[in-house]
Amino acid sequence: MPKKLNTILNTAVLEAKNNSDGKSASYIPELESVDPETTGVAVLMTDGSRYEAGDGQDLLITLQSTAKVAVLASMLEEFGSQKVYSWVRVEPSGDDFASIARLDQFGPLPSNPMLNAGSISLCSHIPGNHEQQLHWLEQWIEKLYGTQLKINNKVYASERRTGDRNRSLAYLMKSTNVINGDVDNILENYFYLCSFEATLKEIAYFPMLLANKGVSLDGERILSIETVRQVISIMATCGLYNESGAHLVRTGLPAKSGVSGLIMAVIPNKGGIAVVSPRVNRKGTTIRGSLMLESISNAMGWHFAA
Amino acid sequence: MPKKLNTILNTAVLEAKNNSDGKSASYIPELESVDPETTGVAVLMTDGSRYEAGDGQDLLITLQSTAKVAVLASMLEEFGSQKVYSWVRVEPSGDDFASIARLDQFGPLPSNPMLNAGSISLCSHIPGNHEQQLHWLEQWIEKLYGTQLKINNKVYASERRTGDRNRSLAYLMKSTNVINGDVDNILENYFYLCSFEATLKEIAYFPMLLANKGVSLDGERILSIETVRQVISIMATCGLYNESGAHLVRTGLPAKSGVSGLIMAVIPNKGGIAVVSPRVNRKGTTIRGSLMLESISNAMGWHFAA
Amino acid sequence: MPKKLNTILNTAVLEAKNNSDGKSASYIPELESVDPETTGVAVLMTDGSRYEAGDGQDLLITLQSTAKVAVLASMLEEFGSQKVYSWVRVEPSGDDFASIARLDQFGPLPSNPMLNAGSISLCSHIPGNHEQQLHWLEQWIEKLYGTQLKINNKVYASERRTGDRNRSLAYLMKSTNVINGDVDNILENYFYLCSFEATLKEIAYFPMLLANKGVSLDGERILSIETVRQVISIMATCGLYNESGAHLVRTGLPAKSGVSGLIMAVIPNKGGIAVVSPRVNRKGTTIRGSLMLESISNAMGWHFAA
Amino acid sequence: MPKKLNTILNTAVLEAKNNSDGKSASYIPELESVDPETTGVAVLMTDGSRYEAGDGQDLLITLQSTAKVAVLASMLEEFGSQKVYSWVRVEPSGDDFASIARLDQFGPLPSNPMLNAGSISLCSHIPGNHEQQLHWLEQWIEKLYGTQLKINNKVYASERRTGDRNRSLAYLMKSTNVINGDVDNILENYFYLCSFEATLKEIAYFPMLLANKGVSLDGERILSIETVRQVISIMATCGLYNESGAHLVRTGLPAKSGVSGLIMAVIPNKGGIAVVSPRVNRKGTTIRGSLMLESISNAMGWHFAA
Repeated sequence: MPKKLNTILNTAVLEAKNNSDGKSASYIPELESVDPETTGVAVLMTDGSRYEAGDGQDLLITLQSTAKVAVLASMLEEFGSQKVYSWVRVEPSGDDFASIARLDQFGPLPSNPMLNAGSISLCSHIPGNHEQQLHWLEQWIEKLYGTQLKINNKVYASERRTGDRNRSLAYLMKSTNVINGDVDNILENYFYLCSFEATLKEIAYFPMLLANKGVSLDGERILSIETVRQVISIMATCGLYNESGAHLVRTGLPAKSGVSGLIMAVIPNKGGIAVVSPRVNRKGTTIRGSLMLESISNAMGWHFAA
Repeated sequence: MPKKLNTILNTAVLEAKNNSDGKSASYIPELESVDPETTGVAVLMTDGSRYEAGDGQDLLITLQSTAKVAVLASMLEEFGSQKVYSWVRVEPSGDDFASIARLDQFGPLPSNPMLNAGSISLCSHIPGNHEQQLHWLEQWIEKLYGTQLKINNKVYASERRTGDRNRSLAYLMKSTNVINGDVDNILENYFYLCSFEATLKEIAYFPMLLANKGVSLDGERILSIETVRQVISIMATCGLYNESGAHLVRTGLPAKSGVSGLIMAVIPNKGGIAVVSPRVNRKGTTIRGSLMLESISNAMGWHFAA
Repeated sequence: MPKKLNTILNTAVLEAKNNSDGKSASYIPELESVDPETTGVAVLMTDGSRYEAGDGQDLLITLQSTAKVAVLASMLEEFGSQKVYSWVRVEPSGDDFASIARLDQFGPLPSNPMLNAGSISLCSHIPGNHEQQLHWLEQWIEKLYGTQLKINNKVYASERRTGDRNRSLAYLMKSTNVINGDVDNILENYFYLCSFEATLKEIAYFPMLLANKGVSLDGERILSIETVRQVISIMATCGLYNESGAHLVRTGLPAKSGVSGLIMAVIPNKGGIAVVSPRVNRKGTTIRGSLMLESISNAMGWHFAA
Repeated sequence: MPKKLNTILNTAVLEAKNNSDGKSASYIPELESVDPETTGVAVLMTDGSRYEAGDGQDLLITLQSTAKVAVLASMLEEFGSQKVYSWVRVEPSGDDFASIARLDQFGPLPSNPMLNAGSISLCSHIPGNHEQQLHWLEQWIEKLYGTQLKINNKVYASERRTGDRNRSLAYLMKSTNVINGDVDNILENYFYLCSFEATLKEIAYFPMLLANKGVSLDGERILSIETVRQVISIMATCGLYNESGAHLVRTGLPAKSGVSGLIMAVIPNKGGIAVVSPRVNRKGTTIRGSLMLESISNAMGWHFAA
């Protein structure tokens, strides 16, 4: 397989490069400053074997919304599903990542934890005082990614500066008692979460951990099987907002996108993939990244369904 | 496994019987006349082994919305995905099975083929004149269920009598040129589709066929692998309307519900399950049926994700 | 006043002719065939004095949605407000004239009788068998316009041919028991209503009748004061769909628009105005007609509020 | 008239007292502490004659949302309609007073200045620094009510404490650049505005001023005729949120409600009315107050339309 997979990854990168649709997210200067041609992929199998193709392998990329999976997994592990699902539902919403209309009409609970509102709700329940909450996030990120990740402080500052829509979501949830406590602190948790940065191969570790049923490469159980099942299911139905359905049809890989041009995807029972390319469509999904995943999944027969 | 599975099925039936929430669909007399205590399950593995538990095994149950999967699979096979996805999208909608608001606001294409609107759209593209279209449906049903199924004429008549909301959906799609041709005929196709009836073990055949990558128990290829992948993915994200997300989290089984109290579910690569129990919740899902699937999946470790 | 008003009308026409925005409604050939430059106004005061300016004075124009006011007034007169408001509400909807989403989400009763859904609901309650219903409409039209009006049969045929969105609205209301009976007949009532045609000065008679508190120029009471108050109020808040608010701010004249480029407007206690010009905006309102009303109202001090 | 009007007012109060539907707003302790049986009315005619009936005449009542009319009138006077309508539209929304869904779907501009969002938008454009803004509000309130009004500091504090939904609206508008500047300050303007308090007869002064075409009882022009026309029109179509249509049909009086159980209403060209009774319906409208206005308007023939 190694040889075959290397060839397939290289082909996927080359083909994806023919597409120049979309554009880099511009609301944060740090995102716009990445070379829009960057097109890379990293794969980590549950046997520990690693593959990569394309460029950007040494680039530090902010996790952005892909980190929503981390807080979901951590909270499930820490509080159990009953508690967690009293804070957020798990239904694909049919709406975009920051729909306030949806929350107002179908709430008070956010539709799912892959949406901004849902992740903010979870971030409001992280245990401890504010410093402890940030520390809690750092520790869980380390566990889930198998290594310590750092915050990109510029991105963190930018998120805070441009976060008015998220503030609107948070105050709406506060007005309906979905969240409690200080909205500024809660949003700082959320912005902090989005601002962790890592290389592609570091990012591929977390979906590999999920594919490996929650057990690390060292054989340590990090997540329970129940958490793993739930997290992968939610990625499958909600991971790409209102493109989740089409994504699963085309790739068969439960995944989560981030506006930095990232997608991390789980190959159930087999491994994890991370792709990056900054040009995103209007729904915030990396276009080349999505094409690469489709190409790789088809060539490898990694579609979950058959 | 046989012994273990039999025990698990029986346990699932027994546990489910403790729940008497919900009530039988009443808009059609034939649905209301079934004994609401009926609680049965049938499993068909890809090796041809069969298991069953509970009652209702000889009951003829109308497929209702579970048949939407059949027309989707047939149309994909007959016209290919590009054509089919010009008639319907594949996104979970976040709304209920017959939402007109959603179609009006986010259309003109219906969100997905598991919704009434989406299935009606597909039914408008069945090839041939009206008689040929009904015949086409019969033939595909025979292929997908591995046996000839008959129409329940009373249900068919009742569907037509009570179908005003579906007429509204159809005329809305006609006004936006999503469907063409005679609305009455198109809806008759759709009502016909919903009115096929079968026993539980006959119903379990179709998800088994999907689990078996489209190959019949006789070794004949009925559906291409591409069709199978797409159909199972769409069941995973959209099969239970705005409960699809929670269903996948809890059971890990791509599935499709019907208001007759049916759910048919795919155990990827392993087999098919059909459950029945008439009492449905407000979203039209059989409550006991859903509980049985969760119990069986957990006990057998059939969750797709791990 | 006569001299002054004549000058003001001529000025209003001239000024309006500077604007060539919008375009003629094209869904019906008969609407598109009218010269788009047509720009006319007719005023009828409660003392019987008549004024006109611009062209199109001899043109027969189909009433289209302006006739919705006629069926509202007739039904209020015939059944009283309590009955009528069990068939339709009287709230501006904030949505467009044929919004199905609104009806689905905020129904089952249509928001107001100036919307297609609301008028269709009223048309379903016209007394008698189908022939009697059409006759009933003819008789009320004669009373309210002070003269017999004829149906434009080509427009009637076109309305029926292109009425799928209205069929969708009607079937949705039938599914929620807002309307009963044969949907085809009900819609024929509605299409019939929209297809009456008249000259501008004939059209100005009805709003004059309303301004005259329901008493005809011959001194005959046609409508009760209660009906008049309600009808004018509903025109004020709902007459121009989701432009009603801006229209009232700018002109102060309760009014009703029609896609044929008509607006009929009430000058409370003073008289009626009819304007026509075929180019309509995206909300179906005649652009030049709207400008003329604003200009005339301002120059004459006819704003209802001061 | 005086005698007749006194009788009519007393009758209206007595009749209204038969109705005990609804309940006092409870989100603010100060509102809930008012005796729910309080039922009063004050009328001020443009000739300076005053009438009153019922109790609560000496009660200081916070203006709440009725004060939205004051900031609208002031801003129109200060900036002109073109500027003001670049900050807010003037369409009835069909939704409730604090709908965020509406703003998210149909924005970015709020539908009208009688909604919370619309009034907050105007409050963001009050000239000067924060202290000057509060002072500006005080001065305009004095002009429009003909006397200096004071802030109820407890209500002001409560509004700030419970204002999360308004914060959500404000941040949503900030995210779309509808408002700029410091959200906390903008909301303090808005909460300050809602916290002015006055007696019924003081409150009746402002609608009298509008009825008197913007001229004070002393003969001083406070508002231009253009401002008066626009303000009354907006009250007519939007003053009672999604009950505005029914209110105008029943009373014919352009009006504005407040959650303190107030309605202030304009009798065009004749005078102003203020009613109070704390029990409000689910849309925030005083039930007895609404009944009193209907009774008085009908008895006096004050319906604007005839």
